[in-house]
Amino acid sequence: MTAINFKEKLARFSEHWSPRVIAEMNDYQFKLVKLQGEFVWHSHADTDEVFIVLDGSMDIEFRDKVVPLSPGEMYVVPAGVEHRPVAPQECCVLLVEPRGVVNTGEAGGAYTAANDVWV
Amino acid sequence: MTAINFKEKLARFSEHWSPRVIAEMNDYQFKLVKLQGEFVWHSHADTDEVFIVLDGSMDIEFRDKVVPLSPGEMYVVPAGVEHRPVAPQECCVLLVEPRGVVNTGEAGGAYTAANDVWV
Repeated sequence: MTAINFKEKLARFSEHWSPRVIAEMNDYQFKLVKLQGEFVWHSHADTDEVFIVLDGSMDIEFRDKVVPLSPGEMYVVPAGVEHRPVAPQECCVLLVEPRGVVNTGEAGGAYTAANDVWV
Repeated sequence: MTAINFKEKLARFSEHWSPRVIAEMNDYQFKLVKLQGEFVWHSHADTDEVFIVLDGSMDIEFRDKVVPLSPGEMYVVPAGVEHRPVAPQECCVLLVEPRGVVNTGEAGGAYTAANDVWV
Protein backbone atom coordinates (compact mmCIF):
# COMPACT_ATOMS: atom_id res chain seq x y z
CA MET A 1 0.00 0.00 0.00
CA THR A 2 2.62 2.52 -1.10
CA ALA A 3 2.90 4.97 -3.98
CA ILE A 4 3.47 3.66 -7.49
CA ASN A 5 6.71 5.19 -8.76
CA PHE A 6 6.95 5.49 -12.55
CA LYS A 7 10.78 5.43 -12.72
CA GLU A 8 11.00 2.40 -10.47
CA LYS A 9 8.45 0.56 -12.61
CA LEU A 10 10.11 1.63 -15.89
CA ALA A 11 13.44 0.22 -14.68
CA ARG A 12 11.91 -3.25 -14.54
CA PHE A 13 11.50 -3.80 -18.29
CA SER A 14 13.22 -2.79 -21.52
CA GLU A 15 11.05 -4.13 -24.36
CA HIS A 16 9.56 -1.59 -26.73
CA TRP A 17 5.87 -1.52 -27.67
CA SER A 18 5.03 -3.83 -24.78
CA PRO A 19 2.67 -2.11 -22.32
CA ARG A 20 2.87 -3.10 -18.63
CA VAL A 21 -0.03 -2.49 -16.28
CA ILE A 22 0.88 -0.63 -13.08
CA ALA A 23 -2.55 0.19 -11.66
CA GLU A 24 -6.29 -0.22 -12.08
CA MET A 25 -8.99 2.34 -11.36
CA ASN A 26 -12.50 0.90 -11.64
CA ASP A 27 -12.38 -0.91 -15.02
CA TYR A 28 -9.56 1.23 -16.39
CA GLN A 29 -5.86 0.45 -16.48
CA PHE A 30 -2.75 2.61 -16.23
CA LYS A 31 0.06 1.17 -18.34
CA LEU A 32 3.68 2.11 -18.89
CA VAL A 33 5.13 1.60 -22.35
CA LYS A 34 8.50 2.31 -23.96
CA LEU A 35 8.27 3.41 -27.57
CA GLN A 36 11.04 3.49 -30.13
CA GLY A 37 10.62 3.57 -33.89
CA GLU A 38 7.39 3.58 -35.87
CA PHE A 39 4.34 1.67 -34.68
CA VAL A 40 1.56 0.39 -36.92
CA TRP A 41 -1.41 2.47 -38.02
CA HIS A 42 -4.37 1.36 -35.96
CA SER A 43 -7.52 2.49 -34.17
CA HIS A 44 -9.58 1.45 -31.17
CA ALA A 45 -13.22 1.33 -32.23
CA ASP A 46 -14.75 1.41 -28.76
CA THR A 47 -12.59 3.68 -26.65
CA ASP A 48 -10.58 6.85 -26.44
CA GLU A 49 -6.93 6.37 -25.44
CA VAL A 50 -4.78 8.70 -23.33
CA PHE A 51 -1.04 9.22 -23.86
CA ILE A 52 0.94 11.01 -21.12
CA VAL A 53 4.66 11.45 -21.92
CA LEU A 54 6.95 10.88 -18.93
CA ASP A 55 10.38 10.90 -20.58
CA GLY A 56 11.62 11.51 -24.12
CA SER A 57 9.41 12.76 -26.91
CA MET A 58 7.08 11.27 -29.48
CA ASP A 59 4.66 12.12 -32.24
CA ILE A 60 1.16 10.82 -32.60
CA GLU A 61 0.60 10.75 -36.33
CA PHE A 62 -2.93 11.05 -37.66
CA ARG A 63 -4.00 10.84 -41.30
CA ASP A 64 -4.42 14.63 -41.39
CA LYS A 65 -2.00 15.97 -38.77
CA VAL A 66 0.83 15.24 -36.33
CA VAL A 67 0.68 15.91 -32.58
CA PRO A 68 4.14 16.19 -30.97
CA LEU A 69 4.32 15.31 -27.27
CA SER A 70 7.03 16.12 -24.72
CA PRO A 71 7.32 15.27 -21.01
CA GLY A 72 4.48 16.82 -19.02
CA GLU A 73 2.12 16.68 -21.97
CA MET A 74 -0.87 14.47 -22.75
CA TYR A 75 -3.23 13.79 -25.62
CA VAL A 76 -6.54 11.97 -25.96
CA VAL A 77 -6.84 9.91 -29.15
CA PRO A 78 -10.55 9.71 -29.93
CA ALA A 79 -12.21 6.32 -30.39
CA GLY A 80 -12.17 5.06 -33.94
CA VAL A 81 -9.52 7.48 -35.18
CA GLU A 82 -6.53 5.97 -36.97
CA HIS A 83 -3.21 6.92 -35.42
CA ARG A 84 0.42 5.86 -35.36
CA PRO A 85 2.81 6.53 -32.47
CA VAL A 86 6.34 7.36 -33.62
CA ALA A 87 9.44 7.97 -31.50
CA PRO A 88 12.89 8.37 -33.12
CA GLN A 89 14.50 7.95 -29.67
CA GLU A 90 13.12 5.91 -26.79
CA CYS A 91 10.11 7.58 -25.20
CA CYS A 92 8.40 6.48 -21.96
CA VAL A 93 4.64 6.91 -21.88
CA LEU A 94 1.80 6.40 -19.41
CA LEU A 95 -1.30 5.06 -21.17
CA VAL A 96 -4.80 5.17 -19.70
CA GLU A 97 -7.51 3.05 -21.25
CA PRO A 98 -10.17 0.49 -20.32
CA ARG A 99 -9.06 -2.97 -19.23
CA GLY A 100 -8.80 -5.29 -22.25
CA VAL A 101 -7.59 -2.82 -24.89
CA VAL A 102 -5.02 -4.38 -27.22
CA ASN A 103 -2.11 -2.18 -28.28
CA THR A 104 -2.60 -2.64 -32.02
CA GLY A 105 -6.37 -2.17 -31.86
CA GLU A 106 -8.13 -3.30 -35.02
CA ALA A 107 -4.87 -3.74 -36.95
CA GLY A 108 -3.27 -6.76 -35.29
CA GLY A 109 0.09 -7.93 -36.64
CA ALA A 110 3.59 -8.44 -35.33
CA TYR A 111 3.50 -5.57 -32.86
CA THR A 112 0.52 -7.00 -31.00
CA ALA A 113 1.59 -7.40 -27.37
CA ALA A 114 0.28 -9.69 -24.67
CA ASN A 115 -2.45 -7.92 -22.76
CA ASP A 116 -2.83 -7.40 -19.01
CA VAL A 117 0.87 -7.95 -18.22
CA TRP A 118 1.69 -6.29 -14.90
CA VAL A 119 5.01 -4.92 -13.76
CA MET B 1 -5.75 19.69 -31.76
CA THR B 2 -2.42 20.05 -29.96
CA ALA B 3 -0.92 18.47 -26.86
CA ILE B 4 -2.26 19.40 -23.43
CA ASN B 5 0.65 20.84 -21.43
CA PHE B 6 0.30 20.50 -17.65
CA LYS B 7 2.52 23.48 -16.76
CA GLU B 8 0.76 25.75 -19.20
CA LYS B 9 -2.62 24.74 -17.75
CA LEU B 10 -1.42 25.06 -14.14
CA ALA B 11 -0.26 28.63 -14.81
CA ARG B 12 -3.85 29.62 -15.56
CA PHE B 13 -5.23 29.32 -12.02
CA SER B 14 -4.04 29.71 -8.46
CA GLU B 15 -6.92 28.61 -6.21
CA HIS B 16 -6.29 25.63 -3.92
CA TRP B 17 -8.65 22.64 -3.71
CA SER B 18 -10.40 23.71 -6.91
CA PRO B 19 -10.01 21.03 -9.61
CA ARG B 20 -9.96 22.16 -13.27
CA VAL B 21 -10.80 19.75 -16.06
CA ILE B 22 -8.21 19.58 -18.85
CA ALA B 23 -9.37 16.53 -20.82
CA GLU B 24 -12.02 13.84 -21.15
CA MET B 25 -11.52 10.20 -22.14
CA ASN B 26 -14.83 8.37 -22.64
CA ASP B 27 -16.79 9.29 -19.49
CA TYR B 28 -13.67 10.00 -17.42
CA GLN B 29 -12.08 13.35 -16.71
CA PHE B 30 -8.47 14.44 -16.18
CA LYS B 31 -8.31 17.33 -13.71
CA LEU B 32 -5.49 19.50 -12.40
CA VAL B 33 -5.67 20.63 -8.79
CA LYS B 34 -3.39 22.64 -6.50
CA LEU B 35 -3.35 21.45 -2.91
CA GLN B 36 -2.11 23.30 0.14
CA GLY B 37 -3.00 22.58 3.75
CA GLU B 38 -5.32 19.88 5.07
CA PHE B 39 -8.41 18.83 3.14
CA VAL B 40 -11.52 17.27 4.70
CA TRP B 41 -11.92 13.56 5.40
CA HIS B 42 -14.17 12.15 2.70
CA SER B 43 -14.84 9.18 0.47
CA HIS B 44 -16.32 8.50 -2.96
CA ALA B 45 -18.82 5.66 -2.63
CA ASP B 46 -19.01 4.73 -6.30
CA THR B 47 -15.55 5.19 -7.74
CA ASP B 48 -11.84 4.79 -7.28
CA GLU B 49 -9.82 8.00 -7.60
CA VAL B 50 -6.33 8.41 -9.06
CA PHE B 51 -3.77 10.93 -7.78
CA ILE B 52 -0.67 11.60 -9.91
CA VAL B 53 1.75 14.13 -8.39
CA LEU B 54 3.27 16.55 -10.92
CA ASP B 55 5.04 19.04 -8.65
CA GLY B 56 5.62 19.28 -4.89
CA SER B 57 4.71 16.52 -2.48
CA MET B 58 1.64 15.42 -0.54
CA ASP B 59 0.33 12.76 1.78
CA ILE B 60 -2.88 10.83 1.34
CA GLU B 61 -3.96 10.10 4.88
CA PHE B 62 -6.10 7.04 5.53
CA ARG B 63 -7.60 6.03 8.88
CA ASP B 64 -4.94 3.32 9.22
CA LYS B 65 -1.94 4.60 7.24
CA VAL B 66 -0.34 7.46 5.32
CA VAL B 67 0.80 7.27 1.69
CA PRO B 68 3.40 9.93 0.80
CA LEU B 69 3.52 10.96 -2.87
CA SER B 70 6.28 12.78 -4.77
CA PRO B 71 6.50 13.88 -8.43
CA GLY B 72 6.35 10.89 -10.76
CA GLU B 73 4.27 8.87 -8.33
CA MET B 74 0.61 7.87 -8.35
CA TYR B 75 -1.88 6.21 -6.05
CA VAL B 76 -5.36 4.76 -6.52
CA VAL B 77 -7.72 5.52 -3.63
CA PRO B 78 -10.28 2.69 -3.60
CA ALA B 79 -13.98 3.47 -3.77
CA GLY B 80 -15.62 3.96 -0.39
CA VAL B 81 -12.38 4.41 1.53
CA GLU B 82 -12.08 7.50 3.72
CA HIS B 83 -9.06 9.63 2.91
CA ARG B 84 -7.67 13.10 3.45
CA PRO B 85 -5.16 14.81 1.13
CA VAL B 86 -2.60 16.92 3.01
CA ALA B 87 0.15 19.13 1.59
CA PRO B 88 2.22 21.41 3.84
CA GLN B 89 3.52 23.24 0.74
CA GLU B 90 1.66 23.70 -2.53
CA CYS B 91 1.42 20.47 -4.51
CA CYS B 92 0.17 20.14 -8.09
CA VAL B 93 -1.75 16.96 -8.85
CA LEU B 94 -3.39 15.31 -11.86
CA LEU B 95 -6.64 13.59 -10.84
CA VAL B 96 -8.38 10.93 -12.93
CA GLU B 97 -11.96 10.02 -12.12
CA PRO B 98 -15.36 9.65 -13.77
CA ARG B 99 -17.18 12.76 -14.93
CA GLY B 100 -19.38 14.13 -12.15
CA VAL B 101 -17.25 13.28 -9.11
CA VAL B 102 -17.35 16.04 -6.48
CA ASN B 103 -14.09 16.82 -4.70
CA THR B 104 -15.45 16.39 -1.17
CA GLY B 105 -17.32 13.17 -2.00
CA GLU B 106 -19.86 12.24 0.66
CA ALA B 107 -18.59 14.85 3.12
CA GLY B 108 -19.66 18.14 1.52
CA GLY B 109 -18.79 21.35 3.40
CA ALA B 110 -16.85 24.50 2.72
CA TYR B 111 -14.20 22.87 0.55
CA THR B 112 -16.75 21.62 -1.97
CA ALA B 113 -15.72 23.03 -5.35
CA ALA B 114 -17.78 23.71 -8.45
CA ASN B 115 -17.69 20.66 -10.67
CA ASP B 116 -16.81 20.38 -14.36
CA VAL B 117 -14.86 23.66 -14.49
CA TRP B 118 -12.44 23.57 -17.41
CA VAL B 119 -9.16 25.40 -17.78
